[in-house]
This record gives sequence, C-alpha cells and structure tokens, in this order.
Amino acid sequence: MPLNGPVEIVGAGLIGTSIALACRRAGLEVILTDTEARHLRTASGLGAGRLREPGDVPELVVVAVPPDHLGAAIREALDTAGPTTVVTDVGSVKQAPLDAVSDHPAVSRYVGSHPMAGSEQSGPLAASATLFDGRPWAVVAGPSAIPDAVHVVESLVEACGALTVRLGPGDHDKAVARTSHVPHLVASVIAGTLAGAAPGHLALSGQGVRDVTRIAGGDPGLYSQIIGGNAGAVAEVLAQVRQRIDLALDALGSEDRVGLESLLVHGLSGTRAIPGKHGGAPQATETVWVQVPDHPGELARLFGDAGRSSVNIEDVRIDHDPGRPVGLVELDVAEGSAGTLLEALDSMGWTAHR
Amino acid sequence: MPLNGPVEIVGAGLIGTSIALACRRAGLEVILTDTEARHLRTASGLGAGRLREPGDVPELVVVAVPPDHLGAAIREALDTAGPTTVVTDVGSVKQAPLDAVSDHPAVSRYVGSHPMAGSEQSGPLAASATLFDGRPWAVVAGPSAIPDAVHVVESLVEACGALTVRLGPGDHDKAVARTSHVPHLVASVIAGTLAGAAPGHLALSGQGVRDVTRIAGGDPGLYSQIIGGNAGAVAEVLAQVRQRIDLALDALGSEDRVGLESLLVHGLSGTRAIPGKHGGAPQATETVWVQVPDHPGELARLFGDAGRSSVNIEDVRIDHDPGRPVGLVELDVAEGSAGTLLEALDSMGWTAHR
Repeated sequence: MPLNGPVEIVGAGLIGTSIALACRRAGLEVILTDTEARHLRTASGLGAGRLREPGDVPELVVVAVPPDHLGAAIREALDTAGPTTVVTDVGSVKQAPLDAVSDHPAVSRYVGSHPMAGSEQSGPLAASATLFDGRPWAVVAGPSAIPDAVHVVESLVEACGALTVRLGPGDHDKAVARTSHVPHLVASVIAGTLAGAAPGHLALSGQGVRDVTRIAGGDPGLYSQIIGGNAGAVAEVLAQVRQRIDLALDALGSEDRVGLESLLVHGLSGTRAIPGKHGGAPQATETVWVQVPDHPGELARLFGDAGRSSVNIEDVRIDHDPGRPVGLVELDVAEGSAGTLLEALDSMGWTAHR
Repeated sequence: MPLNGPVEIVGAGLIGTSIALACRRAGLEVILTDTEARHLRTASGLGAGRLREPGDVPELVVVAVPPDHLGAAIREALDTAGPTTVVTDVGSVKQAPLDAVSDHPAVSRYVGSHPMAGSEQSGPLAASATLFDGRPWAVVAGPSAIPDAVHVVESLVEACGALTVRLGPGDHDKAVARTSHVPHLVASVIAGTLAGAAPGHLALSGQGVRDVTRIAGGDPGLYSQIIGGNAGAVAEVLAQVRQRIDLALDALGSEDRVGLESLLVHGLSGTRAIPGKHGGAPQATETVWVQVPDHPGELARLFGDAGRSSVNIEDVRIDHDPGRPVGLVELDVAEGSAGTLLEALDSMGWTAHR
C-alpha cells in the first residue's frame, strides 16, 4: 500500500527535515510545521516541503519534536487532523508516548516509530534525503492500533528507503537502551576522561578513540531527554557495564591476564552479534561447552580455532575462576551447528561437549 | 637526517609489515625476520622486503613483536646488530621495554617508539604502506639514548609519512592509557552487553553502536598483553570511568536530568579536546566561572552560547549539587581568551567571572 500524501512533518529539525526530503524524493507532497520560524524557512528553502494552508488534510502526520514534548504534540496531531489521518512519531522511546495517548479517542490511528539513523549534528541544515537508506526503522504499534494505520507507517519507512523492524513498545525501549542509549552515555563518559588529560597527551589520539567518542559530540540537551526518558531500561544495562568494569579493575589490580582476556573475548563475541547493515533474523541456538586452560592466549586460541570451523559463534559465556587450572567456556551456535563445531574443536585437540 | 637503510623489521605482522611497505615506498632496502615462516612468505610476497642474509648490517632494527616478547627481542637486536645500528620497537607501552634494556651495554642506541595506527585486523595480509600517513607516532627516548639514535628513529617516522610526538616513557604510558587502552577496554565491555541481547533487539543497531564497539573487534590475545602491560595507568583512568558511571546510575535512579546533562556536556567538551588529525600543541589555559540555573537545558544553552563567542572551550568542570538552585561551571579557555568569553557571556545574560 503506497503512500499518496500529503505527509505533514511536525518539527523541522534534523530528523523531520530528512524525512521530508526523503518523501519529496519519493514524489510525495510535504507540509512543514514548526514553532521556530527560522527552521521552517531553512527546511522549505532546502525544498523539503511547503507551509501549512487552511483546508490541508494530510494522509499521515509525522511528529518529530524533542522527546519531552512528544506526548502533547501527538495528542494535538490526533485532535486536529482529519478523521482518517494516521499519526506517527519518531521519538527514541516508545512506551511513554503510547501511554500519553492511550486515552485519546483517536488512539487507533496512532502508530509509533523510530528510525535508527541520526547525526551528531542537529537542525534542518544537517538534513539529508538519504539519511535512512538501508537503515532499520522500528514500527511500534500499541494494542489499539488498526492494521491500516500500521501499513501507512510502514509505507513511510519504505518511501524513506529504510527497513521496517516490528517490535512491541517494551521490547523497543529495552533494545535501544542496549544498542543506543548506553553506548551513548558510556561514550560520553570516555570522552569526559579526555577533558582531564595532561597537556600534550591527547596528541596520541588515534582513530580508535575518535570512533568510540564520536556520538558523545551530540547535543547534551537532546540526549539527556532521550536517555532520561528511558531511565529504567538504561539503568539495567548500565549496571551490567559497571559490573564488568569492576571485573576489569579487579583483573588489572591482580594481574589476572586471563580475566582481562575473558572480558575482551566477550566483547569480540558482542561485535560479531551485531547484524549486517540490512538486519538479521533472530536465531535458535544450541550450546557447546569447552574446557580451556587457565593461562593467557588460550581463549584467543579457542576463538581462532572455532572461527576456522566456519561455524558462527552467536554468544560466549565464560565461567572464569582465577586460580583454577581449567575454565569452562560456553559457545552458543545456530541450531544444527553444534555437531560441526564439536567435531572441528575435537580435531584441533580441545575437550568439548554439548 | 634521512635514513639510508637497510632497515630490518623483526616481526612481520600487521604493524611490522606496514612499516616495511612504507620504507619500501620511500625507496629503502628492507630486511624481514619473523619466527613464523608463513608470515615471512606473505610479507615478502607483498613486496615488503627480502629475507636476512649473512653479513647484513642494518642501519636501524625495528622490533615489532607481541608486547610480552618485546624486552627479550630488543635485547637480542642490541646483542646481534652492528656497532652503530640503532634499535627501536613499536610496542604500545614504553616504560617496560626501557626497563628491560636499561642494563644493556648498548642501551644508548635504543630509542622506543609507538605509531598511533592499527586495525582491528591483524597479520601481514592486512598491512598497508599508508597505515601511518598523517598519524601521530610517539618517539620515546630513555635517559641514556644518544641524539643520533633519536634522529634515526625520527627519520623512520618521517619516511612512514607520520608525525613525531616526543614524550617521556611515563607520560607516554599515561597518555595511551587514556587515549587508547581504556577506550578499548570499555568498548569491549559495551560490546559484551550486546552478546546478551534478546533475539531481534540487535536489529536496531545503528552506526553509533558500531562506531563505539569497532575496536573491540581486535585480537583479545594481543590486547590483553597490551592493556595488561600498562595495568597501573589503565586502572587509574578506568577508576574515573567507574566513578562517572556511578554518577550516571545515580542520576538515572533519581530522575536527575541536570546530573545526566552534566555528564553529557562534560563528554562533549572531551570530544572537542581531541586535537585535529595533525596533532595540536598543548596550551596554557585560564578559567571562567559561570553560574548556571539547576534545570534541564541550561548547560546545553551555556555551551551553545559559549560556542557562539568563538572562544574555544578547552575543558569543563561542573560543580553540580542536586537540589541547589544554581551550580558553578568552570570553563577553561586558552590564555588570553577569558576576557572575550566573559564579555560574550555577559552580553547574553549569564553571570560569569574569572
């Protein structure tokens, strides 16, 4: 079901203007509204759309305002739009706006969404019609949403060149805590340690630290709303981070190289868990246990050997007890692959079992 | 003083082979040695140099072996090289190898070094002659090093297209703890939280989390040596990270938006402290204190207004006491700029003083 338009964009910032430009690229009529006249001038000057006129009845309203104003702006859109107009938002949390409109008589025409794209820049001048090409875009329907409204929002995702990921609101908020909010917060903490560096030390900054801290260049006012609006889910993942940093401090203090290597191997398995650019389907897994001698290099050797088996490791858990001569490592692999991995590890001299 | 060669590379991994290729690009004769015959075959097959022959007397030996073998390999190079041959290494810590050779009779011809470039890949096949172009390269002379030896190593840096940063060994190790080892370790911890994600949640991974976790894709065996070899300096910075993560957890738990924003603003100032690609000279600074109302958005507004003054903020410290109506923010700026900033902030309605 393709969009026919017009599409109204409420909030002509980076994301709103980029959606407007992508809709224009797809040949749709776009109406722009914003409380800041200078944003409207910039966005319409970029060819992102025209100003609202009396009698306009958009097919879809996209609310793209800062997180703290989302609930009110979605309600207002439902109040003022036509009787069949669908309303979505692009806020980075999804339970809170859903709660804010749950008692609205037109709640069946609201479907939340969240494009996984952005920039450390902000404002309409940084906007781009290609911002969403190939990126995931969460579509989050509440319990009262009608299927037609969901389809309209999915058509917007398609028009913007992005890929729909359907999730419930709770799952969405947990997922972005892990994949976006905690990485952002911790990138800020790491960047903060640079602010205290002795003169001259930062001359040694290479690409690594630039990559790690890039997202910390985002607008603190915006991100404190985003992260603060998802505080519970963020705190849960951040507590895991804190626990592992404590493990790292212990390992550094006791010169426990195996403990340090465990953390790094676990991180490596995490980088491999990130799906390709075009998303990946969740998989059923089975587990292989391997005995690993407790000295430096063994975990890396295991990981290398497992890699050579051509079986993809989906997750790793390490039962590491410093002082014991042997630890147990659990490797999760896709259903049906455990046999291949076991055989390969066995032939390379590892003691492994299911 | 240009290099004449030959240059001997001990250890034909990613870094060693890249240096060899860069030296070949500069027209130098390169001799390759490695305990692994397959690395030698690959590197010489790439045109990185020739195998060692009896009677070879290199002008410079570059030791590029894993961290735990550095001390022994540098000693061996000093033992076996010619009477005027200079020896350097490219290890990522610099105090430990210096200590390992301090009693060697030829210690005056050893000068440590450390190119700030690499890859999450490893081995000679990932090598590139351009790996060091425009990158900082620390040159770390011990107290007994003769000036001629320092010049030879600086000539290598130049031949590789990199930029010399002279530092003492203690300063170097503290600097890389902050700019490299702690970011690596924390990137691994963040990546580790992805390994535990619910099925489907990682489909929302965007560019941000990929950037934050990229370096966690490095070889755990190698990085546990690198980070473990600099445990003291790493633990010191990591303790600051832990402290700020505790602050973040407190702020999330008490819905303290200003506390959260403080952390993000501090991070933003850190991203701005990273010098441009070609390094930056350390600067003397002076401090401006600004009174900031204790509610969300004010810190971001201050930072925006300060940015508009065209004075560069070198560092920020925030004295944030939740519950007090006003906090004090310290802005460090380059010597001579405090007046301009004060005037600008004053005209925008801020209460500020030196």
